[in-house]
Amino acid sequence: MENMSGCDLDRLFNPRTLAFIGASASTSKWGFIILFNILKGNYKGRLYPVNPRTKAILGVPCYPSVGDISEDVDLAIITTPAKAVPGLIDECGAKRIPYVIVVSADFSETGPEGARLEHEVTAKARAHGIRIVGPNTMGVFSSQPHLHALMPPIMPLHGQVSMFSQSGNLGAQMLMWGFDEGVGFEKFVGIGNEADLTSIDFLDYFARDERTRIILAYLEGILPNSGLATLARKVSRQKPILVFKGGRTDVGTKAAASHSGAMAGSTRVHRAAFHQAGIIEVPTSQGMMDCAKAFANYPVPRGNRVGILTRGGGWGVITADACVESGLEVPPLPDEIERKISRILPPYWSHGNPVDMVAMGGDGPFMACLETLAAWDGIDAILALGGSGSRAFQYSQEIKGPRELKFVLAQEELIAEKFSNAPESTSVMTRQLVEQTGKPIIAVSLGSAESHKAALKDYHMVSYPTPERAVRVLQLMASYRRFIESPE
Amino acid sequence: MENMSGCDLDRLFNPRTLAFIGASASTSKWGFIILFNILKGNYKGRLYPVNPRTKAILGVPCYPSVGDISEDVDLAIITTPAKAVPGLIDECGAKRIPYVIVVSADFSETGPEGARLEHEVTAKARAHGIRIVGPNTMGVFSSQPHLHALMPPIMPLHGQVSMFSQSGNLGAQMLMWGFDEGVGFEKFVGIGNEADLTSIDFLDYFARDERTRIILAYLEGILPNSGLATLARKVSRQKPILVFKGGRTDVGTKAAASHSGAMAGSTRVHRAAFHQAGIIEVPTSQGMMDCAKAFANYPVPRGNRVGILTRGGGWGVITADACVESGLEVPPLPDEIERKISRILPPYWSHGNPVDMVAMGGDGPFMACLETLAAWDGIDAILALGGSGSRAFQYSQEIKGPRELKFVLAQEELIAEKFSNAPESTSVMTRQLVEQTGKPIIAVSLGSAESHKAALKDYHMVSYPTPERAVRVLQLMASYRRFIESPE
Repeated sequence: MENMSGCDLDRLFNPRTLAFIGASASTSKWGFIILFNILKGNYKGRLYPVNPRTKAILGVPCYPSVGDISEDVDLAIITTPAKAVPGLIDECGAKRIPYVIVVSADFSETGPEGARLEHEVTAKARAHGIRIVGPNTMGVFSSQPHLHALMPPIMPLHGQVSMFSQSGNLGAQMLMWGFDEGVGFEKFVGIGNEADLTSIDFLDYFARDERTRIILAYLEGILPNSGLATLARKVSRQKPILVFKGGRTDVGTKAAASHSGAMAGSTRVHRAAFHQAGIIEVPTSQGMMDCAKAFANYPVPRGNRVGILTRGGGWGVITADACVESGLEVPPLPDEIERKISRILPPYWSHGNPVDMVAMGGDGPFMACLETLAAWDGIDAILALGGSGSRAFQYSQEIKGPRELKFVLAQEELIAEKFSNAPESTSVMTRQLVEQTGKPIIAVSLGSAESHKAALKDYHMVSYPTPERAVRVLQLMASYRRFIESPE
Repeated sequence: MENMSGCDLDRLFNPRTLAFIGASASTSKWGFIILFNILKGNYKGRLYPVNPRTKAILGVPCYPSVGDISEDVDLAIITTPAKAVPGLIDECGAKRIPYVIVVSADFSETGPEGARLEHEVTAKARAHGIRIVGPNTMGVFSSQPHLHALMPPIMPLHGQVSMFSQSGNLGAQMLMWGFDEGVGFEKFVGIGNEADLTSIDFLDYFARDERTRIILAYLEGILPNSGLATLARKVSRQKPILVFKGGRTDVGTKAAASHSGAMAGSTRVHRAAFHQAGIIEVPTSQGMMDCAKAFANYPVPRGNRVGILTRGGGWGVITADACVESGLEVPPLPDEIERKISRILPPYWSHGNPVDMVAMGGDGPFMACLETLAAWDGIDAILALGGSGSRAFQYSQEIKGPRELKFVLAQEELIAEKFSNAPESTSVMTRQLVEQTGKPIIAVSLGSAESHKAALKDYHMVSYPTPERAVRVLQLMASYRRFIESPE
């Protein structure tokens, strides 16, 4: 894809040399923590802390100014108080540093005086040919150079999701939730006050970045004529763009104005623009990682017809309800598939879709039903519900009973084994079925966060704890598929 | 409240003596597990396993038949194959046992032959004056006698929520999720095929049970003239009745028919009936424990006006959006409250509701803002968002760096301390504010399941990981308040 913004951010996200200006535990707590994160993340390039008042920070020798660094510098990160920033931009300009991340706050977000200072910074940067991230940004993450220039104490997992966020706090939380759920990031940027580089520049760069498979954004406002929608319309046919939109209501918009200063505009207007541009609007904060997980790891379904496999009847009922309420189809089983499944299950199974295994345990029948459903050309995706049987033993209290219970304790392991259903083999087989059929098979394990993380990290199998969350993601995938197949 | 069903289930839920019929590891795996759970739960009454073919099960001596038990028996649990059940009902009748839980399956849920057998069982029970739970039930839990007569391997937490469920599998999952999130149960029953005792009997009993504070149900179908709605209308003015309804769509209804045999009826009809009866319809499976948590531990808000306190601007924006989209009000701050908060926060705070603390850390300012908001009579509830700062350090990889990083590791504890925000003191103070003001203050910690469980168990503080989940619960609480204040 051609470079629309005329700005290649490669040295920003892949710096070989990095000047870190202003970190000291006493004067800049946040700067200190960012430097700490960069060191902890094992940044692959060469790092030059810059601070005239100290010899070394965190054991790394300091330079009095960027001018004292002997080699070329790709990127500077400034974490000093705001007033020092304009002068430092001049120093970076003299050193011919192409990119500067201004973490420092107290700029336009605090009022007219800050706005004046911010204007001074951008004017100087423009004069020097420097491109700026921020000010007032929570930082940047980039997986290839192991660059963890982030304010919050996070080491994100590496993956294929790249994100830009108009709220650093919210973006940071996504990196944390991603960590908890096994969703890895390729690149992340808190766009801060967008004094120079804006969401459009990052969208454009992520679109062209071969390591980025899906683009994620938290946005509060989009300037009407910013060109974001025009650009997104081209990008979204190549890569999914998932946006969680803040400022969807009058009150939210007002709060957004005081927060990011962004003009939020009406919901009706942004919805129409998103729809035209093929942008997938994520409905909730939790939905961001839910969607990222599936879009980054699974093929999108060819249509909206869903097969449901369940170990417990009630879960089948509510999953079918959630599908239909979301506009997904749960087609009836054709005779041929019904006959095949009847050979696997006891006679009193549900004989329909959802396929209710009527509490028949064991992985063999479950996987046999899954294979049969996956081979059925009348559906485009499968929701596979494990039910509570897939959960290992858990007890709330220690045994404090009669002597005979010692025998019980000895049996516990035995029973736990009966309940476990060998997640390794079923996960591997499920993933293989996804590859073979091109159909997303989403597991609903009803289990803990750890089990979903393991399934994703170890087997690239997408799973959620509730059917409603799985259904919501599937619905957005089906809707994205319709967009990419629509005429341009 | 008067006894509407004419049936007092006290000896069922508080049996002093219990006959357990048919547990042996070789012939009835599930029976064996239920007995295992009863023993593990330290049942306070006297337990008599009954099995003519063995001398002892799990170390407890067996009786050949219930007739051989010397004292009166309050409750029998039958877990044998279905064909043996009618004969055993006769034996229970001869022994004058008033309640029998028939766990055994293969009755009406499997077809006409099973239905015939079920009819035989109920006819015999009626002749003997026995009341039956089931057949095809996952069992019963009751906290006072420590009765864990449950098929799934769960030791529920004890609390004030009582639940009946038309799906054993789904109900069992709620006990598990409750365990994970700190939600305790007083009583639980899987109603199975409802051959004798039905949801109405349990609703009536829970309504009169002083230990039950809220009633929770999963229901697929309600017979049009069953009287459930009439009863619920009386009960719901005293205690909240929360229902998650399966079979809300045509496909779901069809699945429900094959599962529980229940007639689901149209969504429009059940919504109207629920509304009239003051039944709170829980929108998702996850919502059941979310709602149970708040309704069991917090006062319901007096109205629908919400104050939002946030450490991060983005989270405030999306929380305000979620409130307004749910019909909750986020009123503007009056001058007086604004002045008070201006004394706490830096000058560039949001000066509005949501109160954005603009990343000002520390618990002191947070609690001061919370107290100011709680004292404001223009709001009925508060959502307090912790932001990512409230999360302790977490890193994805071991340090594998230069020698200097040893110093970094030494610093880590120091930084982690700066990030932690003493949940004990804030939780205690928050709970006190709830008591003093009668306003629910719901925390959104964005953290892990463990942190929410601890907040609830140790401090009775209600918290959720996302603002959307908190908002949904608050909206249902406000709507319940409107119902109980409406004329009868």
